[in-house]
Amino acid sequence: MQDISLSLRKQNETIGFVPTMGYLHKGHISLIEKAKKDCTKVILSIFVNPTQFGKGEDYEKYPKDLNRDKILAETAGSDYVFVPSVGEMYAENFKASVKVKELDFVMCGSFRPGHFEGVCTVVAKLFNIALPHRAYFGLKDYQQYLIIKKMVEDLNFPLQIVGCPIIREDDGVAMSSRNKYLSKSERKNAAILVECLNQAANLIKGGFTNLEDIHNTMCEKLSGNPYVSKVDYFDFRDSETLENISSIDKHDFKRSGSNLLIACAIRIGGTRLIDNMVFDIGRVT
Amino acid sequence: MQDISLSLRKQNETIGFVPTMGYLHKGHISLIEKAKKDCTKVILSIFVNPTQFGKGEDYEKYPKDLNRDKILAETAGSDYVFVPSVGEMYAENFKASVKVKELDFVMCGSFRPGHFEGVCTVVAKLFNIALPHRAYFGLKDYQQYLIIKKMVEDLNFPLQIVGCPIIREDDGVAMSSRNKYLSKSERKNAAILVECLNQAANLIKGGFTNLEDIHNTMCEKLSGNPYVSKVDYFDFRDSETLENISSIDKHDFKRSGSNLLIACAIRIGGTRLIDNMVFDIGRVT
Repeated sequence: MQDISLSLRKQNETIGFVPTMGYLHKGHISLIEKAKKDCTKVILSIFVNPTQFGKGEDYEKYPKDLNRDKILAETAGSDYVFVPSVGEMYAENFKASVKVKELDFVMCGSFRPGHFEGVCTVVAKLFNIALPHRAYFGLKDYQQYLIIKKMVEDLNFPLQIVGCPIIREDDGVAMSSRNKYLSKSERKNAAILVECLNQAANLIKGGFTNLEDIHNTMCEKLSGNPYVSKVDYFDFRDSETLENISSIDKHDFKRSGSNLLIACAIRIGGTRLIDNMVFDIGRVT
Repeated sequence: MQDISLSLRKQNETIGFVPTMGYLHKGHISLIEKAKKDCTKVILSIFVNPTQFGKGEDYEKYPKDLNRDKILAETAGSDYVFVPSVGEMYAENFKASVKVKELDFVMCGSFRPGHFEGVCTVVAKLFNIALPHRAYFGLKDYQQYLIIKKMVEDLNFPLQIVGCPIIREDDGVAMSSRNKYLSKSERKNAAILVECLNQAANLIKGGFTNLEDIHNTMCEKLSGNPYVSKVDYFDFRDSETLENISSIDKHDFKRSGSNLLIACAIRIGGTRLIDNMVFDIGRVT
């Protein structure tokens, strides 16, 4: 793959790269289509990366359908589908590790220790293999997007990270390969996640500035749903620094050039779901 | 610099890269000359990297002579001399980190905690900026060479690491910018380092296989020298895994395809000096 990428670069092609764990849905397709629009060649990778899964997480059962993925990827505009094996990515004696400190401790990082170190390490590898000019990430995994963007900036990778909007089902639920785990009634109740995000956003638009109050209301609502087995977090954070924000009035958004991130992770049955909303605070205050 | 490198690559140039901390000596010059022989363009970087120095180490007083360095670099064949500032390399909010686990705990790593993390992080940055086809490292810093080689392999950097022989003064002392710190009599006594390495090698050639005995003899000899203020280590290790070796007979060199590394770090006055020898065990046993 690296040889192909080096040769594409020599031929003056612009490489767009979409790293995925496969089991493609419309969210992934939108990344491929955006990459195809921006670049002359698109590489999609499919790799369920063991090092970003914790003990007891869903690595073993992560959904797979490579043949379907290949057809979808090609139809959407991928020129190459790169599907390395675990053994090819991690030699027996593998020892390297890439981290982005601090940003990886909060939110999903505090519930999934080592997750973002696994993500950064594999993405650094994939960047060095695919050698893209631009790499496309869905904003559903907002913290991942931010950490990867910071990694690229800090380590001077010669490429641009493009964050792409969350693609949602008709009822607002964010597209995710993990939605497959949900039973029919679990899937129906999963909409509570985006409902709570919208409700919080509306309260803020309506003039509420005490985010702790909104946080408590939303956590109560989520916990009250019989299908929600656990609320990992419902956080208000600075969209650039991930700093916790308890009151809109007291946070200096201009200093960091950032917005308000409302992000949430819950479990429905055994399935962990995340969603978020970045809220242009300039339009509100 | 990155733009220049990208454009050199587009012009089909082969980029050789020599990362240094400046105050060039014949060791550095040999790296530039080797790079010039192998590649069509040579980039030398000069950057005294603060993050690889510990508290109380010599970051502040590390020797500098940029004008002399530029002339030497150009004369030896450098096409570009890249001299970034600390602020350019590390933005206020810098958070990324690259590590090679295990290899960084032993030898110099155990005496300089965080040193190799600083080295890996800055070298990863420099690789992404200079985008070389080949990067040249002196084997005097053997552990650094090995760790960087492993980082490149594990993270799939599209480049080759070339290790170059130690260049020595007439009395055998390895060239080092830090030799400048030594007084005339300290400098004379610094030769004890290479003498001990040679003596250990000769004992092994003579049939001695118990390395612990040799270790004790050499540590005694080094400690006995009134100019040696501290012996950090005098180690026998596997040249690929850095595994400690107590007996040549009991270590399976063939398994790791490696040789015997004899490596030593001492302090003469306040100056820390290192040296090593890689010993082709196939020629002895």
